[in-house]
Amino acid sequence: MTYRSPLGDIRFVLDHVVPFGAVAATERFAEATPDTVEAILTEAAKLCDGVVAPVNGNGDKTPARLENGVVRTSPGFAEAFGAIAEGGWIGVSAPAEHGGMDLPQTVNMSIQDMLSGACLALQLNPLLTQGQIEALEHHASEEIKALYIPKLISGEWSGTMNLTEPQAGSDVGALRTKAEPKGDGSYAITGQKIFITWGDSDVVSNVSHLVLARLPGAAAGTKGISLFIVPKYLPDADGNPGKANALKVVSLEHKLGLHGSPTCVMSYEGATGWLVGEENKGMAAMFTMMNNARLGVGMQGVGVAEAACQKAIDYAQERNQMGVIADHPDVRRMLATMRAEVFAARAIGLSCAVALDMHKATGEGEWAARGAFLTPIAKAYGTDVGCMVSEMAVQVHGGMGYIEETGVAQFYRDVRVTPIYEGTNGIQAMDLVGRKMMDGGEAAYRLLEELEADAEAARAVLPDLAGDLWSAAETLREATEWLTGQDMPARFAGAVPYLRAFARVLGAHYHLRAAMAEGGKGARTNLARVYIRRLLPMYAAHLAEARDGGASVMALSPDDLAA
Amino acid sequence: MTYRSPLGDIRFVLDHVVPFGAVAATERFAEATPDTVEAILTEAAKLCDGVVAPVNGNGDKTPARLENGVVRTSPGFAEAFGAIAEGGWIGVSAPAEHGGMDLPQTVNMSIQDMLSGACLALQLNPLLTQGQIEALEHHASEEIKALYIPKLISGEWSGTMNLTEPQAGSDVGALRTKAEPKGDGSYAITGQKIFITWGDSDVVSNVSHLVLARLPGAAAGTKGISLFIVPKYLPDADGNPGKANALKVVSLEHKLGLHGSPTCVMSYEGATGWLVGEENKGMAAMFTMMNNARLGVGMQGVGVAEAACQKAIDYAQERNQMGVIADHPDVRRMLATMRAEVFAARAIGLSCAVALDMHKATGEGEWAARGAFLTPIAKAYGTDVGCMVSEMAVQVHGGMGYIEETGVAQFYRDVRVTPIYEGTNGIQAMDLVGRKMMDGGEAAYRLLEELEADAEAARAVLPDLAGDLWSAAETLREATEWLTGQDMPARFAGAVPYLRAFARVLGAHYHLRAAMAEGGKGARTNLARVYIRRLLPMYAAHLAEARDGGASVMALSPDDLAA
Repeated sequence: MTYRSPLGDIRFVLDHVVPFGAVAATERFAEATPDTVEAILTEAAKLCDGVVAPVNGNGDKTPARLENGVVRTSPGFAEAFGAIAEGGWIGVSAPAEHGGMDLPQTVNMSIQDMLSGACLALQLNPLLTQGQIEALEHHASEEIKALYIPKLISGEWSGTMNLTEPQAGSDVGALRTKAEPKGDGSYAITGQKIFITWGDSDVVSNVSHLVLARLPGAAAGTKGISLFIVPKYLPDADGNPGKANALKVVSLEHKLGLHGSPTCVMSYEGATGWLVGEENKGMAAMFTMMNNARLGVGMQGVGVAEAACQKAIDYAQERNQMGVIADHPDVRRMLATMRAEVFAARAIGLSCAVALDMHKATGEGEWAARGAFLTPIAKAYGTDVGCMVSEMAVQVHGGMGYIEETGVAQFYRDVRVTPIYEGTNGIQAMDLVGRKMMDGGEAAYRLLEELEADAEAARAVLPDLAGDLWSAAETLREATEWLTGQDMPARFAGAVPYLRAFARVLGAHYHLRAAMAEGGKGARTNLARVYIRRLLPMYAAHLAEARDGGASVMALSPDDLAA
Repeated sequence: MTYRSPLGDIRFVLDHVVPFGAVAATERFAEATPDTVEAILTEAAKLCDGVVAPVNGNGDKTPARLENGVVRTSPGFAEAFGAIAEGGWIGVSAPAEHGGMDLPQTVNMSIQDMLSGACLALQLNPLLTQGQIEALEHHASEEIKALYIPKLISGEWSGTMNLTEPQAGSDVGALRTKAEPKGDGSYAITGQKIFITWGDSDVVSNVSHLVLARLPGAAAGTKGISLFIVPKYLPDADGNPGKANALKVVSLEHKLGLHGSPTCVMSYEGATGWLVGEENKGMAAMFTMMNNARLGVGMQGVGVAEAACQKAIDYAQERNQMGVIADHPDVRRMLATMRAEVFAARAIGLSCAVALDMHKATGEGEWAARGAFLTPIAKAYGTDVGCMVSEMAVQVHGGMGYIEETGVAQFYRDVRVTPIYEGTNGIQAMDLVGRKMMDGGEAAYRLLEELEADAEAARAVLPDLAGDLWSAAETLREATEWLTGQDMPARFAGAVPYLRAFARVLGAHYHLRAAMAEGGKGARTNLARVYIRRLLPMYAAHLAEARDGGASVMALSPDDLAA
């Protein structure tokens, strides 16, 4: 059995859990009627299952390679990318005036879930291109928008983001790439960038790089960074790829996974670029791109988890060792855990997308705050679940899981980068307990209120599950009050466990909603029971860790730890 | 910085935590004086750091390969194996009459910890050979012993274990390989075996296979299985490798990791073998080999975790992103967690080894029961920690962790098989809650009593840590009482979380001992605080899962889970 897009689960989450109905009810997204969304998702699923998933193994076995300075992609990737572009899937949420479908992010993220499960290495290309479209839409001049966005939406060109340099990873402010005004409105960009995903390829006719660089005399740190658009080929008068720009791919990285996605070391050697947004405001513009990408990366975790989960379930139903192993209680435990985690992570990701859409549609600050609060949770939990579920999928396969030909190890390797890129999960957690709770935790408390109201309403039908959730919410509220009273080092030492606890409580909330949607009886209720009774209790362990503060870990110097 | 054997930590565990003194005080192991053990471990560490660790990367980059039917090993492997053999390290615990050192398993397992950290792919060879020596020692005829054991100890020959067949993995009883008496006391072995670790190599002059097979008319299942020794080359009259036996390596597996360890598909085509032990009692004989190997695999997890932990600490002290990242609270959290987990897993493994040694020295059933009870815990927790710590080590490295040249991803890939082989961790957990608790949990209660006595004694010095441990022990006792009252399906659905909870409480116990050994003040006390305050609370979540029973997961059919 091969990958099947989880259409049923996604539709259920949209209809009953997130709920997407509120988005569709706004004027802004009035065109996202149930029928339209249904048709769109069905079409996307067909593409993912029939065209994209079949090339996933090729990417792993025949990695992208650098040949005379040009990146040659894995067999079938160009065709599959062509099909994605042709279907209009890159521009699902892009503005209609430039050729996009202008649909809600919630629909886009549902599609990213499916595309990631089908082929993560390939999905990265449209995901980053979407981020670039969004950044240009918000910060670029009309001229640049008109020139680049249609080409990006159509998939003729693709987009990249260039932040990292060898000395500047999580500390973006340490970057050294220079931009010198050429006097004609353009700039000469010089510097080296690393970890540039899809920095070049043969699936598009041009690559549009968004590059962070420093203007002469710019302030040190993040306040002196500007954003530039630097195409591989300079557009000619008709907007078609013209003269080659002064940039090149130096090498491709040899990675643990995602072999089908070319990760480039890029060298800019006085390459011509144009300013996007204001001088020295590059970080803000880049964050537009990254925030979108962060939720997208969370959905990558969900998508790979889904694919790994399916593969494990299929194998467990086939593999006979004193009966099919799916009937062994320990294997069933793993399968049920995997499925319950995937559901929770999917619901959190799509719930974040709904908040972003609602903000776009209504302009209400409360929705903006919710989207901002849920983004790091969706990114970190989604990718943690991606790793955890593909790890369990390997385990379900036993010895066969360790053999590359089986294919499940590819998920395990591919997904491992997702907790690292677009801001490590540690950085997500620090963002959550730092910037996103600067106001004292407003967004957290609102989520908890909503949760308690749902728990209250569910008490008559599912008293045990509702009770567990209610207690968890109370404990989380106390921990939140404690946390917001701490200084930053103490918050940061507990940031990751706090985020995990919050995600787990939210996951339980969405499972309870799912159970209530079927009247507290049926397969979704059984799954909710597995999550709430067996997996939710971990939240308390996470909170115990978070509330230990920073003193105990900081008391151990690196020398103490060296053993 | 490269791998440094954790001599200090091992010595501390032996002296103050396990404690090894009791073993050295027995007449059986009177020669294992502190000075001798110190000298032995120091010498082994020198070998691991100077000779074995340097070839670890070669194994990954230049995998073992099959060339004209012969396995060619990775560059440097033959020399490193030669040095291990020459130092007498294969026979650390083997009988002196055949050339072994006859030292306690605790010393041997300390060395396996170091060898695994240095090069897991290579360590597998001596580990399996040791298992074979032990199986022969207990079950083979004097003639076979005299012929094979000295060659195995000297490293002229190496040993393998052949259980698995395509249709017979965890269900060993499903195997089909046949053994037909040839009338001269030997047997003709015919069948195919898979996943045969170090099934052939150029580092030895002969390979001695222990093969499970069925005699004509043998009962179905595990009761009809016998054990045979089947050498690659039939020994001539002088015991030297003579005529080639009718067996061959069909292919090598292409694995997620451990590329330096040749994993063979073996074909026996009427190969000549000799019975080891009694007819149809092969499983019992194989278990002698596997029990040894299980603890050894647990130490593999510890060793790889140690190596990954060191690499992460080194990197975190070098990598500058707004100050060295080791000083960032979230990174320090990860480093402290890793170190605390490694210590706990090491202490549990060596504590199991002490029990096995004490049983050997005293013959007391209580020690046998303890060793039997701790073996699955040491195997599963050691390998879980191996995976968890190498996973965190990748995360500490950020983007660099995903690049293969960095080297940390190798640990992540290599160690992933350890929760699978020698009985999956699920099987370990079922062994624990099933067979090992058939008597109602005697061994569990004795461990808890010891723990509570220690907690009581520590109360005056470290009241908070002692109190936490005491409560955990009480909760675990209640859960144990509950568990032993359940039927097997319910136990099995909670087996893995129960094992994890037990391991965590034991880990806390050994951390408390370490803290008390330094008077409740210092680096080990700080580490104990991290483990007990931050990581111990997970035990309650595991027990909540275990106590949920099997109904909730079994209520979800595989069809329900398919989504």
